[in-house]
Amino acid sequence: MNQLEKFNALYPVQVGIPVQWGDMDAFGHVNNAKYFSYFESARIAYFEKLGVMGAQSQNNIAPILAETSCRFKLPLYFPDTICVGAKITEKHSHGFMMEYAVFSKQNQKITSIGTGRIVMLNYATHEKIRVDSDLLGKINRIENSVNNPL
Amino acid sequence: MNQLEKFNALYPVQVGIPVQWGDMDAFGHVNNAKYFSYFESARIAYFEKLGVMGAQSQNNIAPILAETSCRFKLPLYFPDTICVGAKITEKHSHGFMMEYAVFSKQNQKITSIGTGRIVMLNYATHEKIRVDSDLLGKINRIENSVNNPL
Amino acid sequence: MNQLEKFNALYPVQVGIPVQWGDMDAFGHVNNAKYFSYFESARIAYFEKLGVMGAQSQNNIAPILAETSCRFKLPLYFPDTICVGAKITEKHSHGFMMEYAVFSKQNQKITSIGTGRIVMLNYATHEKIRVDSDLLGKINRIENSVNNPL
Amino acid sequence: MNQLEKFNALYPVQVGIPVQWGDMDAFGHVNNAKYFSYFESARIAYFEKLGVMGAQSQNNIAPILAETSCRFKLPLYFPDTICVGAKITEKHSHGFMMEYAVFSKQNQKITSIGTGRIVMLNYATHEKIRVDSDLLGKINRIENSVNNPL
Repeated sequence: MNQLEKFNALYPVQVGIPVQWGDMDAFGHVNNAKYFSYFESARIAYFEKLGVMGAQSQNNIAPILAETSCRFKLPLYFPDTICVGAKITEKHSHGFMMEYAVFSKQNQKITSIGTGRIVMLNYATHEKIRVDSDLLGKINRIENSVNNPL
Repeated sequence: MNQLEKFNALYPVQVGIPVQWGDMDAFGHVNNAKYFSYFESARIAYFEKLGVMGAQSQNNIAPILAETSCRFKLPLYFPDTICVGAKITEKHSHGFMMEYAVFSKQNQKITSIGTGRIVMLNYATHEKIRVDSDLLGKINRIENSVNNPL
Repeated sequence: MNQLEKFNALYPVQVGIPVQWGDMDAFGHVNNAKYFSYFESARIAYFEKLGVMGAQSQNNIAPILAETSCRFKLPLYFPDTICVGAKITEKHSHGFMMEYAVFSKQNQKITSIGTGRIVMLNYATHEKIRVDSDLLGKINRIENSVNNPL
Repeated sequence: MNQLEKFNALYPVQVGIPVQWGDMDAFGHVNNAKYFSYFESARIAYFEKLGVMGAQSQNNIAPILAETSCRFKLPLYFPDTICVGAKITEKHSHGFMMEYAVFSKQNQKITSIGTGRIVMLNYATHEKIRVDSDLLGKINRIENSVNNPL
């Protein structure tokens, strides 16, 4: 299995993003902070599949990002097109753990890996909310949509 | 000791940054990726004290960010002024570990904590470079410049 | 009168911003798009003095940016601290014209000049709203607060 | 001719960009400064067709952005995919004038129009450089590549 097949088998939610020239900093490669915008795009795409974006206005319950990280394995340059993948790796009582990966078309490799710890929050009361069976079911359906043979 | 005194006692390198309105995203608070730009500002300030910025052009040796993370404890809003602190928490054979903290003037609290793993690299050969005694000495002098009573 | 005195005499609303390393792009100077964030900071500061920020939630009337421009005279680099000034140069029936300037501490010069055309809008009906005498009075008081001898 | 056909007939260089969630600001639509990053992407694409990117390292001659503007006709929101077009509208002795346009797939309309004044500069001497016949020829070939029936 090549790296792209591996990437596709691992990450059920993916977004394609062309690297912009302006994503690069004075070191001449994509700036570290930019990766977290890339991850955010994949996270939002996942949230939309879960139906929890804009939930804020309905019942005040929305996911928040409590912690995030990125490990930079290879630099990215313009021009390139990346595919950013997201998967849920752990389910917690009041949230879940996500993993993100950046697949570079130029490198044909996963060049960075990240994580995001998500907590479900009631914005009105500022209380953590339990992940209910409905949300768990949706997560399972999305995660099972990739035929992960690893 | 109040939170500001604690912050000052912990972080030998600090930069003040006024939060810009445009740092906020559609959720109405400072965007998660922006924190990594804040950390970067403190990291660069530390690198300048170490004399390793622009070293690239002299001997091809420069620090790179291999991994970074942020834990969000409280959201930031405009208007606010933050102080971003950096300290070196571990010395490795070929680099070091940094810790970052965002102190919010509005909250009078540390609202976020981050980390950065730094590797010293020879840009020409792409090889990791050992941290030499000169660099270690500079790190020690900076870290000892705070009178850390904790 | 030196350039700083000139700047102070011209722009009644000013915000200080330390240039961040990450504001620079792969050309090694501050990226052009970043100037519009700088201008935005001065614009928002002016809007707050006018009491029209967050007006959105009160009576649905808020200022929008219809057009903006920037002329780059000298590049900006990190490290530098800039002062961004704003003034209202024309009053229209349904809005006004602003001028922005970036004063660089390193250069002791105005290094960029910009403009912004503002329209007062009712967000509910999407109709343009006339600038009333109350708003005009506030504008005049702010603009007259600089003792412009030019 | 519909708006998309018009857009295609006008702008010989185009880049497709998916709007990212993080491009939006606290007003809930794409931030004004972001448009200049969009324009930049189209400008860089044009520069690459002209063979003047990276020219810096060859003969010290490179194009710089001297002035830029944007007129916002309709707001952009996530999710959307935009196509950003660039054309050269005027040829000057030492540079040229560009026009940019953002075509929104969601709106099926040009939602913003911008301009950029470009000057050819020798980075070593800081002198303006005349646009030579080679560069003029390339510009003409690119501009004539659209079959502009307007």
